[in-house]
Amino acid sequence: MRHDATLKSLGEFGFIDRIARRAPDGSGVVLGIGDDAAAVAPSAGNLTLITTDMLVEGIHFDLAFCDAFSLGRKALSVNLSDIAAMGGTPRHALLSLAVPPSVDLALLDDMLQGMMQRAAEFGVSLIGGDTCSSPDRMVLSLTVLGEQLPERIVRRSGACPGDAVCVTGTLGDSALGLQLLKKGDRDGFLIARHLDPTPRVREGRALADAALPSAMIDLSDGLLADLQHILDSSSVGARLRMADIPLSPAFREKLPAMSEEARCLALSGGEDYELLFSVPPSRMSALRSVMQETGTPLAVIGVITETKRLAVADADGIELPLQTKGFDHFAGS
Amino acid sequence: MRHDATLKSLGEFGFIDRIARRAPDGSGVVLGIGDDAAAVAPSAGNLTLITTDMLVEGIHFDLAFCDAFSLGRKALSVNLSDIAAMGGTPRHALLSLAVPPSVDLALLDDMLQGMMQRAAEFGVSLIGGDTCSSPDRMVLSLTVLGEQLPERIVRRSGACPGDAVCVTGTLGDSALGLQLLKKGDRDGFLIARHLDPTPRVREGRALADAALPSAMIDLSDGLLADLQHILDSSSVGARLRMADIPLSPAFREKLPAMSEEARCLALSGGEDYELLFSVPPSRMSALRSVMQETGTPLAVIGVITETKRLAVADADGIELPLQTKGFDHFAGS
Repeated sequence: MRHDATLKSLGEFGFIDRIARRAPDGSGVVLGIGDDAAAVAPSAGNLTLITTDMLVEGIHFDLAFCDAFSLGRKALSVNLSDIAAMGGTPRHALLSLAVPPSVDLALLDDMLQGMMQRAAEFGVSLIGGDTCSSPDRMVLSLTVLGEQLPERIVRRSGACPGDAVCVTGTLGDSALGLQLLKKGDRDGFLIARHLDPTPRVREGRALADAALPSAMIDLSDGLLADLQHILDSSSVGARLRMADIPLSPAFREKLPAMSEEARCLALSGGEDYELLFSVPPSRMSALRSVMQETGTPLAVIGVITETKRLAVADADGIELPLQTKGFDHFAGS
Repeated sequence: MRHDATLKSLGEFGFIDRIARRAPDGSGVVLGIGDDAAAVAPSAGNLTLITTDMLVEGIHFDLAFCDAFSLGRKALSVNLSDIAAMGGTPRHALLSLAVPPSVDLALLDDMLQGMMQRAAEFGVSLIGGDTCSSPDRMVLSLTVLGEQLPERIVRRSGACPGDAVCVTGTLGDSALGLQLLKKGDRDGFLIARHLDPTPRVREGRALADAALPSAMIDLSDGLLADLQHILDSSSVGARLRMADIPLSPAFREKLPAMSEEARCLALSGGEDYELLFSVPPSRMSALRSVMQETGTPLAVIGVITETKRLAVADADGIELPLQTKGFDHFAGS
């Protein structure tokens, strides 16, 4: 580590230049980094979708077990996942960054490189942001703009009784991966799922373009908590089948599938960034075709009910007690 | 202060509901707070302008001398000022907030109320954001979207030799106000200018709609630093006349106008949030009409030069030594 390679030596505007040089112009960008505001044009007929997420060092990430490159990728991914959950296509990103002046530039470069790599993978361009110092911990705030035709945008509020509850991929991997990281493990499938989740952007867009989901959300806070958002917005309930909740081979290898801990992680573990959505029975065969085309694992895990209640049944149809809830930032421990 | 009135008791989603109830739907908002992303439609033919700013407790604000209501107003104002500097109209805002769980709800309510009041004054609607906990200090990240027709957007890059350098209002007030706050003063014009700056949104829009400025920026880092951004972007220089730099009566009352300290604050003091812009000589009479219509104090403080150098001359035409620069977040002390 070179002593002069800090933000203090580079200065705020040197650092902004450094970011700007790595941010190639994207389509729809009229004015990128370097003015008082960026200017962009949505594609004809499209609405602009906007989402924002803040990540605080020591709360959302710990550089002791999250390398800076992965952090950069993940910070963008979680916002891309929100756009995916609306059925939109992400286009532009803004990055605000509060950094202790002593932070090593190499770390920031790694983080930016990770973010830019992820952005390039999804055709997203960095168009602006803000940099400032922070007395102690790093804070990142990402804003992502996306777009979709108004009639294709998928909300949380459209779930109807009888709709199938569907989910992409497997659940609980990220939460189990975090447990392993805290125990000292440093690689493997579960840890990769935690450090570097893949947002289901292509899947979300394909589902929306085919008008399949009646409601959709991405899984950031855990299955039960996020499903509850759909249920609240749609004024419905749901009945899930525990045995149908998809678990990865790596997850099953670590935990007996029907153990209390496995259930807890699968139902309430956060940060899987899979898509959770409801689909009317009449569209189920079209759904299977679309998921096959995108090569996406699909699980049908339950049904939307008229009764405004969320229940999970075991393999014998007996209702499981649900004590676990999703992550609440202010709940404390 | 009630002991239960904390974020911890309300929970993350309770707090989001609380914000959402205070955010009335605005025009152009298809989907506001409460889904994975917001959805908005720009007015026909307009580009979307986007700007974002992060405020860290202990760096950008100190609740020891900035009340929460003013903080909420100012956090939004500084972003509105960026949209004003593009000649745009602000429309929508997103607020991300990292808060220590022990923070008193009354403080957050005051802050939100200040922000919402300012938003209402400028026809801006809050459409989304993020809330999370922070171990120690509060961090706010505001993103504001605005709009303007593409041909009317004013950039930093259009200043030409011979253009007049113009500024709205008076300079140095905010920096002097901050000094007074630190000395224990709590009110008066200068302190109000620091705690509750008025973004020049109407003026910026009027200037842009009349196609008057060749380049424009808002004064956040100080006159010399912000003018340098215009000069760099436009590949030109400027010669300013110290005697023409506008100072308020309150400022002059505190400091002899030609003292070293007065010069330093007027040239390099940040956070006045006035507009600094260049105007071709042929448009000067139109400029005076527009400024009269909006009732805005206007000062012509110098001229753009071909030589890429920024100079300030005293009343006798003798060049002043410039040792002062604008605020650099990473420069340290």
